[in-house]
Amino acid sequence: MSRGILFVVSAPAGCGKDSILEKALSKDINLTYSVSATTRTMRAGETEGISYYFKSREEFEKMIKDGELLEHTEYCGNYYGTPKQTVEEILADGKNVVLKIEIEGAGNVKKMLPEAVLIFILPPSMEELSRRLHKRGTEDEETIQKRLKQAETEISCAHSYDYVIVNGDLDAAVNDFVSIIKAEGFRAERNAELISGLNK
Amino acid sequence: MSRGILFVVSAPAGCGKDSILEKALSKDINLTYSVSATTRTMRAGETEGISYYFKSREEFEKMIKDGELLEHTEYCGNYYGTPKQTVEEILADGKNVVLKIEIEGAGNVKKMLPEAVLIFILPPSMEELSRRLHKRGTEDEETIQKRLKQAETEISCAHSYDYVIVNGDLDAAVNDFVSIIKAEGFRAERNAELISGLNK
Repeated sequence: MSRGILFVVSAPAGCGKDSILEKALSKDINLTYSVSATTRTMRAGETEGISYYFKSREEFEKMIKDGELLEHTEYCGNYYGTPKQTVEEILADGKNVVLKIEIEGAGNVKKMLPEAVLIFILPPSMEELSRRLHKRGTEDEETIQKRLKQAETEISCAHSYDYVIVNGDLDAAVNDFVSIIKAEGFRAERNAELISGLNK
Repeated sequence: MSRGILFVVSAPAGCGKDSILEKALSKDINLTYSVSATTRTMRAGETEGISYYFKSREEFEKMIKDGELLEHTEYCGNYYGTPKQTVEEILADGKNVVLKIEIEGAGNVKKMLPEAVLIFILPPSMEELSRRLHKRGTEDEETIQKRLKQAETEISCAHSYDYVIVNGDLDAAVNDFVSIIKAEGFRAERNAELISGLNK
């Protein structure tokens, strides 16, 4: 059985990465979501162990110290990190894994695992992103402005990703995402055994 | 308008590259087929300017001399080559181009245009390939055996392609092919203007 592929998805807040992932995970593309750990506050509608593993700063710093994280980063004053063992087990089991992590964390994963595939989700425009952040109504104006500023900085890092998708229409963006997951499975370097097997 | 992407498809005889291409070209993936030139004999059902540009050896050698070919190669005693200007015009027009060329020619295209995307189509097994070659009944047994031997050599070159697809079920192979065409359009390096445009 061949090893699964590690996908990393990043997007500025309000670009719909959660919606895209939720829909993509229901498709027949052998994809498993690996839950991140964070010290940020749980939001309405979030669930421990599904949205994130919610940790105290002390707990999180112990995970760092014990080498239990594939990567970790501090973002807007909170820690975010990827539990290493879970990812490794899913990949070894031949399943594709998707991580949802911030720019710096994504870069760190790519450094440690260059075969990881990085996907960045873009908004159709900054105006539309602003509209969506206001519409979701979970943050005050100051936080929204901070997030828009942050989004600009993040988007300038999209060049260093492998792929970019524009989330204008959700279903179209999900299809685009699925094409990438499928296509990466056809990479020749991931099918060396298949090729050799025909020349036995 | 961004430049189109150049795709190159290779496959041993009998792997169904013509059927895959025909179906893929009817999909909404902005893909245009660029007809090759060859000195091989026209087969039943083939049409000048659609299947190939059929040339005499003298005509073909003049095209080589005049630098009119992106690549050319000699295969099973015949010349095959890709007219340069046609490909360039289609790409400049923002359309994706697909070329159907043999291993050596594909390698030459990749050397000249490293951004070209190479796709190799594999048979499900050598037994199935043999069955298909016999079934199509266009060649005598000696030619079929020569093609099977040739197929083994060709398949050993699939490692150097970007992608490999197995043509077991035609519709599935077409879908796989379409995923690759779509996904390559989302490559970050091909969307630099889109990314920069969001940060104006």
